[in-house]
Amino acid sequence: MKLAVLGTGGVGQTIGSKLVELGHEVTMGSRSADNEDSRAWAQAAGSGAAQGSFADAAAAGEIVFNCTAGGASLEALEAAGAQNLAGKVLVDVANPLDFSQGMPPTLSVCNDDSLGERIQAAHPDAKVVKALNTVTAAVMVDPGSLSEPGTILVAGEDSGAKEEVGALLRAFGWPADSILDLGGIEAARGMEMYLPLWLRMMGALDTAAFNIRVVR
Amino acid sequence: MKLAVLGTGGVGQTIGSKLVELGHEVTMGSRSADNEDSRAWAQAAGSGAAQGSFADAAAAGEIVFNCTAGGASLEALEAAGAQNLAGKVLVDVANPLDFSQGMPPTLSVCNDDSLGERIQAAHPDAKVVKALNTVTAAVMVDPGSLSEPGTILVAGEDSGAKEEVGALLRAFGWPADSILDLGGIEAARGMEMYLPLWLRMMGALDTAAFNIRVVR
Repeated sequence: MKLAVLGTGGVGQTIGSKLVELGHEVTMGSRSADNEDSRAWAQAAGSGAAQGSFADAAAAGEIVFNCTAGGASLEALEAAGAQNLAGKVLVDVANPLDFSQGMPPTLSVCNDDSLGERIQAAHPDAKVVKALNTVTAAVMVDPGSLSEPGTILVAGEDSGAKEEVGALLRAFGWPADSILDLGGIEAARGMEMYLPLWLRMMGALDTAAFNIRVVR
Repeated sequence: MKLAVLGTGGVGQTIGSKLVELGHEVTMGSRSADNEDSRAWAQAAGSGAAQGSFADAAAAGEIVFNCTAGGASLEALEAAGAQNLAGKVLVDVANPLDFSQGMPPTLSVCNDDSLGERIQAAHPDAKVVKALNTVTAAVMVDPGSLSEPGTILVAGEDSGAKEEVGALLRAFGWPADSILDLGGIEAARGMEMYLPLWLRMMGALDTAAFNIRVVR
């Protein structure tokens, strides 16, 4: 399958490399088509990996991962182009973290709105699925690296899109029964507002390599 | 031990009854000293249970549980009286849920502040410990009712106060290794901002009888 990864940071590189490893053709997109990080990534990831502008990547991908920093996501997706996202599954992995006031970061949008909802509103023809934003990059693509995977959350308006994302999550190593569908994209509020707790648990546990599991 | 429970709703009644069951003397406090719900509770809970105004209860308790609705907590604690809270452990179980815009509720304070912090700031001589706000009342006092307890979070400035709360949590059935100390009261932000996710998980799971467990 042809996939696009928007964003050249740790999350984009980790997801991009895993997708290449799984046999997909992956184009990493960045602000300029001449990004040092994405060039280095494409070279290292080998056959199946390419890079270009946000628009190049979005045009090439059948499914698009938004792995840009939350504060830059709307601009990056505008650059990707509504026509390149229309009808496609757009997996929103970003968190709207605002580091401008120092650590720990606050959220630049929360409570009565969310980044996931804003992305869906800005791209009504894309099928936005919020997913994977509740764990660190290494755990996203290798939940088996923990003592047990824990629960991974998804939210979005389109059931078919969530099915497609579920298939990718299972390929990443998430057992089918670890995937919890929270409903429509409005649930992105809950998923993003978990981040302040995640950050403080990371501090208390002294590691980002953790997750939560729902117990009943 | 003498304990105060402020608030006559489901959380206050559940915690109050459990504390009586554990052999403590519990005074339930409400806005008026003549509250129907707290009178009924005190009668049903039997020997060891009393009721009165917020100030009566706070004066009687060596440890005070804030089980009022989050939107009313600061007012209730003001009525309880700073002098009746000074030097005492104040366990803040409340969530600042705002139902005025309908369901699901938003938070009346979040992101760069929290109810727990506001309570500590309003009562600098009390030792505020945020705890138990991340599970439904029945689970608070009976974590063994789930297939496994999961993780219970605490935050506060005073280590000794957290120790005292930890002892009560263990008496409620929380294993020592299920208690995760997130640090100072600022971490109440994370614990309260988890509520929007909790509410959506409750919807997806179709039950409030659940918790999360940290997995590494």
